[in-house]
Amino acid sequence: MGGVQSFREMCDRTKNTNIRLSLPAVCVVWEIAMIILFGVFIRYNWESDAHWAESKHNLSDIENDFYYRYPSFQDVHVMIFVGFGFLMTFLKRYSFGGVGFNFLIAAFGIQWALLMQGWFGSLDYSDGKIKVGVENFINADFCVAGCLIAYGALLGKVSPVQLLVLTLFGVTLYATHKNNSGPFFFTLNARDAGGSMVIHTFGGYYGLAISWMLYRPNLDQSSRLQGSKYHSDVFAMIGTLFLWMFWPSFNSAIAGHGDGQHRAFINTYLSLAATVLTTFALSSLFQKHGKLDMVHIQNSTLAGGVAVGTAAEFMLTPYGSLIVGFCCGVLSTLGYVFITPFLEKHMKIQDTCGIHNLHAMPGFLGGVVGAITAAAASDTVYSHEGLVNTFDFKDEFKDMVPTVQGGHQAGALCVALIFGIGGGILVGAVLRLPIWGDPADDNCFDDEAYWEVPDDEENIIPNIQYNNHMQNKDV
Amino acid sequence: MGGVQSFREMCDRTKNTNIRLSLPAVCVVWEIAMIILFGVFIRYNWESDAHWAESKHNLSDIENDFYYRYPSFQDVHVMIFVGFGFLMTFLKRYSFGGVGFNFLIAAFGIQWALLMQGWFGSLDYSDGKIKVGVENFINADFCVAGCLIAYGALLGKVSPVQLLVLTLFGVTLYATHKNNSGPFFFTLNARDAGGSMVIHTFGGYYGLAISWMLYRPNLDQSSRLQGSKYHSDVFAMIGTLFLWMFWPSFNSAIAGHGDGQHRAFINTYLSLAATVLTTFALSSLFQKHGKLDMVHIQNSTLAGGVAVGTAAEFMLTPYGSLIVGFCCGVLSTLGYVFITPFLEKHMKIQDTCGIHNLHAMPGFLGGVVGAITAAAASDTVYSHEGLVNTFDFKDEFKDMVPTVQGGHQAGALCVALIFGIGGGILVGAVLRLPIWGDPADDNCFDDEAYWEVPDDEENIIPNIQYNNHMQNKDV
Amino acid sequence: MGGVQSFREMCDRTKNTNIRLSLPAVCVVWEIAMIILFGVFIRYNWESDAHWAESKHNLSDIENDFYYRYPSFQDVHVMIFVGFGFLMTFLKRYSFGGVGFNFLIAAFGIQWALLMQGWFGSLDYSDGKIKVGVENFINADFCVAGCLIAYGALLGKVSPVQLLVLTLFGVTLYATHKNNSGPFFFTLNARDAGGSMVIHTFGGYYGLAISWMLYRPNLDQSSRLQGSKYHSDVFAMIGTLFLWMFWPSFNSAIAGHGDGQHRAFINTYLSLAATVLTTFALSSLFQKHGKLDMVHIQNSTLAGGVAVGTAAEFMLTPYGSLIVGFCCGVLSTLGYVFITPFLEKHMKIQDTCGIHNLHAMPGFLGGVVGAITAAAASDTVYSHEGLVNTFDFKDEFKDMVPTVQGGHQAGALCVALIFGIGGGILVGAVLRLPIWGDPADDNCFDDEAYWEVPDDEENIIPNIQYNNHMQNKDV
Repeated sequence: MGGVQSFREMCDRTKNTNIRLSLPAVCVVWEIAMIILFGVFIRYNWESDAHWAESKHNLSDIENDFYYRYPSFQDVHVMIFVGFGFLMTFLKRYSFGGVGFNFLIAAFGIQWALLMQGWFGSLDYSDGKIKVGVENFINADFCVAGCLIAYGALLGKVSPVQLLVLTLFGVTLYATHKNNSGPFFFTLNARDAGGSMVIHTFGGYYGLAISWMLYRPNLDQSSRLQGSKYHSDVFAMIGTLFLWMFWPSFNSAIAGHGDGQHRAFINTYLSLAATVLTTFALSSLFQKHGKLDMVHIQNSTLAGGVAVGTAAEFMLTPYGSLIVGFCCGVLSTLGYVFITPFLEKHMKIQDTCGIHNLHAMPGFLGGVVGAITAAAASDTVYSHEGLVNTFDFKDEFKDMVPTVQGGHQAGALCVALIFGIGGGILVGAVLRLPIWGDPADDNCFDDEAYWEVPDDEENIIPNIQYNNHMQNKDV
Repeated sequence: MGGVQSFREMCDRTKNTNIRLSLPAVCVVWEIAMIILFGVFIRYNWESDAHWAESKHNLSDIENDFYYRYPSFQDVHVMIFVGFGFLMTFLKRYSFGGVGFNFLIAAFGIQWALLMQGWFGSLDYSDGKIKVGVENFINADFCVAGCLIAYGALLGKVSPVQLLVLTLFGVTLYATHKNNSGPFFFTLNARDAGGSMVIHTFGGYYGLAISWMLYRPNLDQSSRLQGSKYHSDVFAMIGTLFLWMFWPSFNSAIAGHGDGQHRAFINTYLSLAATVLTTFALSSLFQKHGKLDMVHIQNSTLAGGVAVGTAAEFMLTPYGSLIVGFCCGVLSTLGYVFITPFLEKHMKIQDTCGIHNLHAMPGFLGGVVGAITAAAASDTVYSHEGLVNTFDFKDEFKDMVPTVQGGHQAGALCVALIFGIGGGILVGAVLRLPIWGDPADDNCFDDEAYWEVPDDEENIIPNIQYNNHMQNKDV
Repeated sequence: MGGVQSFREMCDRTKNTNIRLSLPAVCVVWEIAMIILFGVFIRYNWESDAHWAESKHNLSDIENDFYYRYPSFQDVHVMIFVGFGFLMTFLKRYSFGGVGFNFLIAAFGIQWALLMQGWFGSLDYSDGKIKVGVENFINADFCVAGCLIAYGALLGKVSPVQLLVLTLFGVTLYATHKNNSGPFFFTLNARDAGGSMVIHTFGGYYGLAISWMLYRPNLDQSSRLQGSKYHSDVFAMIGTLFLWMFWPSFNSAIAGHGDGQHRAFINTYLSLAATVLTTFALSSLFQKHGKLDMVHIQNSTLAGGVAVGTAAEFMLTPYGSLIVGFCCGVLSTLGYVFITPFLEKHMKIQDTCGIHNLHAMPGFLGGVVGAITAAAASDTVYSHEGLVNTFDFKDEFKDMVPTVQGGHQAGALCVALIFGIGGGILVGAVLRLPIWGDPADDNCFDDEAYWEVPDDEENIIPNIQYNNHMQNKDV
């Protein structure tokens, strides 16, 4: 054990992972800033304010938006914290970091997201306040999802301080480019209820670009830890299943009341079901002896939810959803088999969780499906009132027609891509500064770097081997 | 390690578990068939169609069925995928298969269930379409539950291709015999909100009959793997608890709006609470030194939910629910102690998860309780309007009286039993064909057969022993 | 292995942990008592009775209280069974006891809680019946939460029979002191939607007082088991996250319809988010090398939810919630670092899970915050109607003013504290009787005492060592 210890100490000297000052400083300073900014800007909206009793007029209490959206919100919340968190516990010695840092950056990001999305969206110019209700909190969770996706590419290779920086910038980029209120006229009124574009395409390419900037040529030094073990794979299935089950809530959480939410749930449910079958099929097909690979089952089964994100609230039709899910299971599994190794070998992109196959590609596909479905919308299929409701062709957009809407959807997809890649390169450059306490190459994927890890059987085994060696020598 | 390897290879030669062609073929062909059939038959219903805005008349958006049922649907969904899935991770080396194949067959079955239940139920004869909304998706999950129960009896002994066949036929049998729209006049209008009969009795006996047909006299060759270990038992508790907690949602998910759902939740909650106490009591009583057995805690605590499935929406009364739960905890635990060993030894039924004790017996009891409760219903207890609502005494059934209803309930129970046993024998005969890639007797309960399993400490331990042996020899 | 066996047998002789008679007897007798008492007292309320169809007048089915509260109820239910249960799996060899006994006492307690809270609250004097609906079941879960908190202090040191006694008295004390209907005039109408006072302060000090009465001077004899291991820490994170995610539902579950529930969710969400940041900050700050400690992450991150329990439904303002959460993360983490060791060393209070830091202190703080917020309420901030709704200034309390309300809140906090400490001392005295089958000092924190534990790698390892020793000797 002594040799291991001293070797590790030497590494610690080379690369200092001590975050005793930086992490507390960032967290405390930032939280104080949040308190001040919330004090200045954030107020309850009319549905959560005690004045509701007076102001609700003829609405029943049950028509408070809370009852439309809270069950979906809680499902989304579970996806963010348990879904993403446990999906990242699959590494044999990085489960604490997977679920713990996911927890930290999500809790950090949602506060900043409320402010950023408020300033760029629901700021009330009459009194300079942001009025928040349940929908804002769903959007905050959505916004953080983009950053957690990016974390997936970097899992095990960065320090928690770097993750906080990633989240700070990620949320900022997300809120500025988000299409409805985006900065570009050709993305105006783009719809993206389930975030194929703004969450998955943006988050995926943001993470990949950062990973490219932080390329580690000698990462194979910690290859002994870059795999799963039996129980960590079962833990990861907790994440997979909660993501899979609640994805219909994710895609329907901010869809229109009534038929909008109802339809978004149906499309997502069906797409996900189809993806499971093609994922199992391709996983078996591409492994020797036809054995299934847990990496595919844990990840590719979810790609169908990503790919109907944009179109879920549209009249995609049930069989249309199955087709999207079918293709995504194939695409995503092929990605794990062929594209991830290619990216690592030839493009210098090390993608720990394979977010390219689960989020980036399916997200892009989802944006395309959304643009086509929007462009093909018609009064016959939606009814006139339905078309107006679904695409929000009201007020300033009352003259919008489906084909133009399709164009704006495509524009929003391009913007998500550009913000993801461009933002990732910029943030990656910041994260290369040697001040963030990231681990050395041979120290990656190891919870020892940032956590007090309890001794257990695994630490005992080398011990036994060592002792045996000694004993036998003595003899 | 070499000896183990070559022995296993020899077995592989005898029984080929390679599913590289059959699994992908079945999945892909089937999914394409689904896409075509969905294209022909499945459409959004009026509550999930964009025409809702025009057609909803005086309904508020919040009165869309989505808001009545979606929270319950999500709970049911969790039970199907996490509940059943994790309950089956308890074996020491079959956790991947437990949770993974559960995932596969559930995702496969729900699609087929939407079609089958549509054809036998909600098919709109005016345009030949099945109009689906949230209630259809709950029913699809319910339908799959029967097949997952059957899987419990076969856990570790069958190939994924066999499971897909089991599910295909199971869903078909379920949809054809399901009582409301069943093929027999004496089961017409039978109520079974929580599925004691159609899900648990049917599914339980279906699985047991298949297991009887697939009897393996030499299964003791893999007895080393037919047990749990510490952590796999904790994983299984995740399944147990999610099933236990969400069972009130299961039994109330498709009950009548308002008091029906409210009452079904109360009855199930109380029955389950009582079951926990008697399960702990009997588990301790029948083990030496009074120690508790995880098998009982993981399974028998749930029997109370099964047994109030049919009667949950009736006026069973709170203390009536407690009585049902009390009896079920006793019955189910005694089943694990006495009946499962008896079935294995004398009846050639090998029941890996003990579904006879958790589903088949309690389901049958639930059918009986339901028939009695229905027959005893009266205007005094229900009010006239309440009676009509609860038992749907409308239209063609407006002349139905409680005693006749009780008879129909009993008829439906018999039909479930017959379809379960008869269907199981037929499907079992199909599954005995030597083409499905099932594992050899000494290869059962082992994920190695169908999964890429990561190396971990367990594989290291024999290694150490082997090395020590060598080293000592050398000395 | 032989030596260990015989030593353990000797201990068993000294302290008998055989509960083969006591546990079944208590469970069965008690459950029969429940059935009788439910038969006499408990009935469906008007919203869950089949008469609803006749009695609902102009209400839509969706306005049944079920739809307002059931999603929150299910979240609370998950917190009680999975949240508390898995949070207590962190010990390396007490995961069965953690999650299993939690399951037992919660299922036991909710039945007694329905009766006790009915007698002291919703008993209908016209017919002597308690009419139950969804809100009663939420309150039953709440009531049990207090007992589960107390269990946290005693984890691993008591027998299941002791836990049932603890729960029986705990529920009784809870229901008698609970403020709205409490026995003291100066606590009348005290509001405590999230239970900072009645659940956390009471439950926390109740458990600590019992632990003080059951002080074990030689507990260090089982210090080898009083820690976590890698996987048990990940299991505990399941508990942490489900508690953290669903705490907004906990605090809003019984708040007023409409804006009340909406606001309670917002305040809790924000407070919890802030707590996560300060917990990570202080955990890193107080460990050598700045490493994070899983104990803090698993527990202190939740303190923010406790501390806004009382004030969550008030107009605490979003930034006010952040401030409360900020302080609680600091306070709770400092508690783990300094106060828990102090309590154990100098006060003879052995607090296995650190409930003083997670529940007792933050609960007390929450009571203070609630009293201040209530006293500061005004027509301007709430609107007149909002004030009446929020604080229930109706009927007998129509002349109540905020300052007096603040006084009553403070009174309720004192009563919770006194009932907790006083009740704990009394119950602790009962639990010291030598009849309950509690484990010997060197047998604590070990599932072997009450569970059939499967053999696994851990039992193999010492075996190897032993064999090696033998082999080497032979040589």
